[in-house]
Amino acid sequence: MWEFETEPEFQKKLDWAEEFVTEEVEPLETLWRNQVFERPINPTLARIVDPLKQQVRDQGLWACHLGADLGGQGYGQVKLALLNEIIGRAAWGPVIFGTAAPDTGNAEILAHYGTEEQKKRYLQPLLDGDIVSCFAMTEPQGGSDPSVFTTRAERDAHGWVINGLKFFASHARWASFYLVMAVTNPDVDVHHGASIFIVPSDTPGIEIERNMALFGQEKAGHGTHGLVRFTDVQVPAENILGGEGQAFAISQTRLGGGRIHHAMRTVSQARRALDMMVERALSRETKGSRLGDKQSVQNYLADSYAELTQFRLFVLYVAWRIDKLKDYRAVRHDIAAVKVLTPQVMHNITQRALQVHGALGTTNDLPLNEWFSGSMILGLADGPSEIHRVTVARSLLRNGKPAEGMWPTYYLPNRQEKARRKYAELLGLDITDAELVGGADITDGKR
Amino acid sequence: MWEFETEPEFQKKLDWAEEFVTEEVEPLETLWRNQVFERPINPTLARIVDPLKQQVRDQGLWACHLGADLGGQGYGQVKLALLNEIIGRAAWGPVIFGTAAPDTGNAEILAHYGTEEQKKRYLQPLLDGDIVSCFAMTEPQGGSDPSVFTTRAERDAHGWVINGLKFFASHARWASFYLVMAVTNPDVDVHHGASIFIVPSDTPGIEIERNMALFGQEKAGHGTHGLVRFTDVQVPAENILGGEGQAFAISQTRLGGGRIHHAMRTVSQARRALDMMVERALSRETKGSRLGDKQSVQNYLADSYAELTQFRLFVLYVAWRIDKLKDYRAVRHDIAAVKVLTPQVMHNITQRALQVHGALGTTNDLPLNEWFSGSMILGLADGPSEIHRVTVARSLLRNGKPAEGMWPTYYLPNRQEKARRKYAELLGLDITDAELVGGADITDGKR
Amino acid sequence: MWEFETEPEFQKKLDWAEEFVTEEVEPLETLWRNQVFERPINPTLARIVDPLKQQVRDQGLWACHLGADLGGQGYGQVKLALLNEIIGRAAWGPVIFGTAAPDTGNAEILAHYGTEEQKKRYLQPLLDGDIVSCFAMTEPQGGSDPSVFTTRAERDAHGWVINGLKFFASHARWASFYLVMAVTNPDVDVHHGASIFIVPSDTPGIEIERNMALFGQEKAGHGTHGLVRFTDVQVPAENILGGEGQAFAISQTRLGGGRIHHAMRTVSQARRALDMMVERALSRETKGSRLGDKQSVQNYLADSYAELTQFRLFVLYVAWRIDKLKDYRAVRHDIAAVKVLTPQVMHNITQRALQVHGALGTTNDLPLNEWFSGSMILGLADGPSEIHRVTVARSLLRNGKPAEGMWPTYYLPNRQEKARRKYAELLGLDITDAELVGGADITDGKR
Amino acid sequence: MWEFETEPEFQKKLDWAEEFVTEEVEPLETLWRNQVFERPINPTLARIVDPLKQQVRDQGLWACHLGADLGGQGYGQVKLALLNEIIGRAAWGPVIFGTAAPDTGNAEILAHYGTEEQKKRYLQPLLDGDIVSCFAMTEPQGGSDPSVFTTRAERDAHGWVINGLKFFASHARWASFYLVMAVTNPDVDVHHGASIFIVPSDTPGIEIERNMALFGQEKAGHGTHGLVRFTDVQVPAENILGGEGQAFAISQTRLGGGRIHHAMRTVSQARRALDMMVERALSRETKGSRLGDKQSVQNYLADSYAELTQFRLFVLYVAWRIDKLKDYRAVRHDIAAVKVLTPQVMHNITQRALQVHGALGTTNDLPLNEWFSGSMILGLADGPSEIHRVTVARSLLRNGKPAEGMWPTYYLPNRQEKARRKYAELLGLDITDAELVGGADITDGKR
Repeated sequence: MWEFETEPEFQKKLDWAEEFVTEEVEPLETLWRNQVFERPINPTLARIVDPLKQQVRDQGLWACHLGADLGGQGYGQVKLALLNEIIGRAAWGPVIFGTAAPDTGNAEILAHYGTEEQKKRYLQPLLDGDIVSCFAMTEPQGGSDPSVFTTRAERDAHGWVINGLKFFASHARWASFYLVMAVTNPDVDVHHGASIFIVPSDTPGIEIERNMALFGQEKAGHGTHGLVRFTDVQVPAENILGGEGQAFAISQTRLGGGRIHHAMRTVSQARRALDMMVERALSRETKGSRLGDKQSVQNYLADSYAELTQFRLFVLYVAWRIDKLKDYRAVRHDIAAVKVLTPQVMHNITQRALQVHGALGTTNDLPLNEWFSGSMILGLADGPSEIHRVTVARSLLRNGKPAEGMWPTYYLPNRQEKARRKYAELLGLDITDAELVGGADITDGKR
Repeated sequence: MWEFETEPEFQKKLDWAEEFVTEEVEPLETLWRNQVFERPINPTLARIVDPLKQQVRDQGLWACHLGADLGGQGYGQVKLALLNEIIGRAAWGPVIFGTAAPDTGNAEILAHYGTEEQKKRYLQPLLDGDIVSCFAMTEPQGGSDPSVFTTRAERDAHGWVINGLKFFASHARWASFYLVMAVTNPDVDVHHGASIFIVPSDTPGIEIERNMALFGQEKAGHGTHGLVRFTDVQVPAENILGGEGQAFAISQTRLGGGRIHHAMRTVSQARRALDMMVERALSRETKGSRLGDKQSVQNYLADSYAELTQFRLFVLYVAWRIDKLKDYRAVRHDIAAVKVLTPQVMHNITQRALQVHGALGTTNDLPLNEWFSGSMILGLADGPSEIHRVTVARSLLRNGKPAEGMWPTYYLPNRQEKARRKYAELLGLDITDAELVGGADITDGKR
Repeated sequence: MWEFETEPEFQKKLDWAEEFVTEEVEPLETLWRNQVFERPINPTLARIVDPLKQQVRDQGLWACHLGADLGGQGYGQVKLALLNEIIGRAAWGPVIFGTAAPDTGNAEILAHYGTEEQKKRYLQPLLDGDIVSCFAMTEPQGGSDPSVFTTRAERDAHGWVINGLKFFASHARWASFYLVMAVTNPDVDVHHGASIFIVPSDTPGIEIERNMALFGQEKAGHGTHGLVRFTDVQVPAENILGGEGQAFAISQTRLGGGRIHHAMRTVSQARRALDMMVERALSRETKGSRLGDKQSVQNYLADSYAELTQFRLFVLYVAWRIDKLKDYRAVRHDIAAVKVLTPQVMHNITQRALQVHGALGTTNDLPLNEWFSGSMILGLADGPSEIHRVTVARSLLRNGKPAEGMWPTYYLPNRQEKARRKYAELLGLDITDAELVGGADITDGKR
Repeated sequence: MWEFETEPEFQKKLDWAEEFVTEEVEPLETLWRNQVFERPINPTLARIVDPLKQQVRDQGLWACHLGADLGGQGYGQVKLALLNEIIGRAAWGPVIFGTAAPDTGNAEILAHYGTEEQKKRYLQPLLDGDIVSCFAMTEPQGGSDPSVFTTRAERDAHGWVINGLKFFASHARWASFYLVMAVTNPDVDVHHGASIFIVPSDTPGIEIERNMALFGQEKAGHGTHGLVRFTDVQVPAENILGGEGQAFAISQTRLGGGRIHHAMRTVSQARRALDMMVERALSRETKGSRLGDKQSVQNYLADSYAELTQFRLFVLYVAWRIDKLKDYRAVRHDIAAVKVLTPQVMHNITQRALQVHGALGTTNDLPLNEWFSGSMILGLADGPSEIHRVTVARSLLRNGKPAEGMWPTYYLPNRQEKARRKYAELLGLDITDAELVGGADITDGKR
């Protein structure tokens, strides 16, 4: 039953998407390097982008991660993975296909946990792309560990009052509203004592202390990741999302397929790097032969192909497992393993591609150094690789069991004795033979 | 259509094999460390081994790689891969399942190229396991490059006279006959000027100069890999296999599925190493906690799981491609990529497993150091990894094309100009604008 | 005699430099991220920088790489290495200490090969820091292989006419003059047929096609590395530097100590990264303990310390060898080995430091991602690591010799026979013993 | 003062040793693969070995690690390192030079802590090489963590009664006496509650349960590393070494220089592997050129040279630090760093050398696979690398300090503000400027 290919009908969709992204979407990144989330959208930009979005809608591929109830196709994870591989090739892909983070995740949880009123007010304009939103969870002292979060929401007569400092709140500067995670019950574990609030961005008391900028992509202090201070920020009681203490249950929903999509985006970017390496190896001559004739370059090509091919299969396998088991928890360790591999694959392949391009690769005139240094972001965003390794290991340990007695099950003297007992008669051994106890060695078969 | 699981009916076969190998076959390696190819078989050994082989026959799994015409099942490569994964767990698996090299490959080419007389005399007893055979191709000065082979076969009145020295001729000491590759026409490329001869091992002029021994597995000078000198060895004309000059065409047939099977054997041995690592991590306490609670050990576990899982999927994918395309040449680069990964996966996982077992891991009382040092054999047998990387690279290069002009296709100024021309009207640009020529920068989207 | 420390008197100089760089020079990089080579210097900048330069002069440390004849101290390479380690910590160090490339190298060759007139006109203002200069050698199609250079200088009635395209001509935009390497005799090997010309930057026919920008450090198209086209650029005959065909002999002079200084700069930047890692590991708590208590972080720290310490010793050793042997050629392979290690050390340590800093490390608000992605520049500038590995290997091969006969010198049967002959009498062997020929095995000492 | 060479007088000693080891000692390993510790010595062996030992004594190099009081030369660690580099080349070196473990360490602690009576009875014959000894510390459940040791010594009327199981007790089968570490006071930390006892090997109650064998070097169950059970083993009160509770203080003494010597032994074996690689690269042709002309082989050579050269310098540096500081504790982290690097260097270089030798490298006819798999022993003996990394990291952390406040010291906004305040006047800034508080960005120097 093992099958490693896509059904023809869906393959046609993919083929359309591939050509569309290559021809129409990729060029945008040379005009506006990064996706632009400013609202209202710059009219020049809108003139170019709106018809492209419309084409995607016409193909029924807009916001394809959404369930049928929200206007999506209800695709499973395998199909979404294959689509995201294509969308992720181009910097502008996610905007054009309606799958840009964090809005996608925010939309998902609003759809799932929001009241009718919340959906009308926040979800609909988000789905329409008229506004952008911000997910404010991480805190500067906290990193991947929510148990040190200190942002608090306390009840008062009018609802809730929020105080705290949030870090890497992407798109804070343009968001119409924030989803803010805050501790509402400090007496219990943060996983049960935190809640999410919908906070309109014009609420008094919100201050963006710094727009943190990714190295090489944005100018220092003018980036897209807000360091946002909330000082006595007042929201009405109805602005809680889901229920009190539900923050973590809700936010898990967001991460589900996202890591798979990120991994597939990495696959396609790494493939672009590999393709660039091939082209360069065929184009450049030095010391009397093409780069592609140098064994070091051949090694780079071969290792990159091997790494990429097996990684892609792994990601698709995990997507298939999600579809099959319908349970993220059962594949949590596989998702974590993919997450660990993602930055490695990107790092290794872009590093080699850059090296093969020589000095030109270190410049802004090729995307390779951006991808190379960006591989570090892949290993930190959404939890550092160190944490995901622990997740994988714990799953393996949970499914194993300790050895009986002091020695490993594979300890030769014990295995040997067991085998000799098993075959004693055929071996012509008297199993009361003292040697059995003494651990006599017959490994060489000469006995 | 992507499917990552085995059909239930065949899974039952696999389940039987798994239990059989674990319970019945694995213990043998503690009594006779390596498979024994001595003929006639030691009677004690035969008493144990023969009933096991019979069980395999009863299940219809004997020599499962053979086509239906030779009594096999005609399984495709995916099924063979899944079976070999199980067979390869145990040192004695291949003997018990009738898939031990080099006899399997030798049988394949005898079946395919042999005359009726040759089949009767050599193939049948080989299939029955009554004799063993030797494939004498490699030469000590030659390594992976046949173009430096010097063994010659020259015609004389009675047939052919063979002179030369062969290296790593496995099982030479026990073989009833050798398949000897020799140059018959030195005036053409070795790939067209070499032939294979069937040489009974009692032919005068054959001398085993040294039985080379694998480190750690055999005693120096008493191993299974013959350094064999042929001095005026006379064979009748009818002992040529296939036709004159066919040696390479024939020997390619041998390697077909073998690398896939080896890779799956590696998968299962590496999995054993990983399982041992898990057991150890759960069994041993040091510095106040289990090894499994140490982050370094967790890293070893997680990285091993990730490497192994994706590698296994890659091997199955390649097997599937062979079944699908029915053409080894079309997947030659994929087989080569698998071949490059095979020793790496084995090395990395066994190294970590050994490390986690501490001093015990370095001893003969666990199989880990044998597997670890054996990983080097995987990277050399059947061509060193360096050669296989070249194969992968050349395939990639063949399918790529050089850049047009001096700069890579991804050179930003060129891409930017193209994009600006494409969207000139929407951007409100006059494309005669001097800036277009000068490479004005609008990357920041602020123009 | 092995000694691993600096003499006290010079150590005092180093101590002064260390405090000065830390207190006075490091802050500059937060105001002007990169050294500024614009001329005339921005007056605000001059107000800050000039007094700092004066302090360096007062200490006798200005342009310390220069010989005593040019106003330097005549320090050997060990001392220069130790000084450059300190200067290289800070982005602005080289400007403040008068050691900024490419002006240093240009000054060296002008001093060595220039006529009196050339020195007066070009060298003096360069030494005074009043102007900056450009070394135009690399070509876009050429990379590290000068044999494909196509820039030509042809004689005419008035001197020479230069045509060609130069790549990565650093500081082209600000230079008062260029040193241009051009082929003057295409009939011989480029190493003997190229010459260097001094070309004032206001000479007609010079066009900067693009100011290439390093990723993350400069804005695309607005960087410091010129792609410069020379079209019928006319220079008088006296503007040749050294003699015709001397270009390579001259340019080798430039590279002498430079790689050592770069390596020491890497040592100090990598040490900064390691220090940052230590601080972070002590400052951040997650999951109930400090980062420094996590074994993964401990691994990063330990491996970084080990790599850095041994690398630093290697660089100082090579500097010592240069001082001792007074011959760059004799240590060429050691310099090449240092060059290969330089980007590796920088890459590995900055990657770990970045990882430990989490999301913050990926931003422009820490220098870590700049250093990390900059490690690629270290592996490409002045020849890619691939070339330097070849240099090391060739040196080793030149000093080795092939085995006698077909087998390696260490082939056991041959060694064993030799030993048995040597000790035949003591072993009680009759050396006519047939076994000696047959290669009997007495490895186990049991004979 | 940096000096990287040996004083001429001592260099002469080294030159003698080098020739002696190459000509006289290396051949022994082809006759008796491992050093033989059987007592009494086999007379054939003695006939060969005794005169060699005498030559070493004549040169004043016997047991050179011993202090002058014990008949050594009182060499410092640098000299011992240089000597051990040569001794360690050959498998039999340590026996011929009187520096074989564990006898050397045992002699050291007997000399330092033994009573006159103990010295007379145990130390003298050990120094004379008439007997061998065993250090029984490790326990099978314990590994590197003594706090789980369970071997107990309890007082009774006649002295002490020892019960427990010891693991990897090297040379247990041949030892005349054991030094057994046992818990004498279970109420305190094992580091203060354990003592060392001298136990003659013929004392009743000692049973060697298994002679554990290193993979590839010894036959399973017939090795040199005893699993030794002590059942009610009675020793007189005077057989305690040093005082009660002194076991760890004593055993630390043993490890002092040993790791340095091991590291230097690794240097010379790795150099042998590198030399073999060079020879092979020059001897073997394939695909039309020498192996040494293939870039992959050149990469192996270059990387091996670079790793080895810097590692050797590091080891000598640490030896120099020990001589200088006279305090092992002060260099403990450096010794640990060397210990971490030792197996890596050996692994990497032997792996490449093996690969270059092809199939021959995997056999017993070359030493490469033994060295390769033996690299794992280097990473486990005397504590696994994981533990030594922790030692290095803790030392770094102890010497660092946490950041002040929430952000790293290198956080740009803070550094920038500080720099702007420092240079406010020169910059023409009014430091009450609101921007200073707001973190305005002037990184681009354009302000």
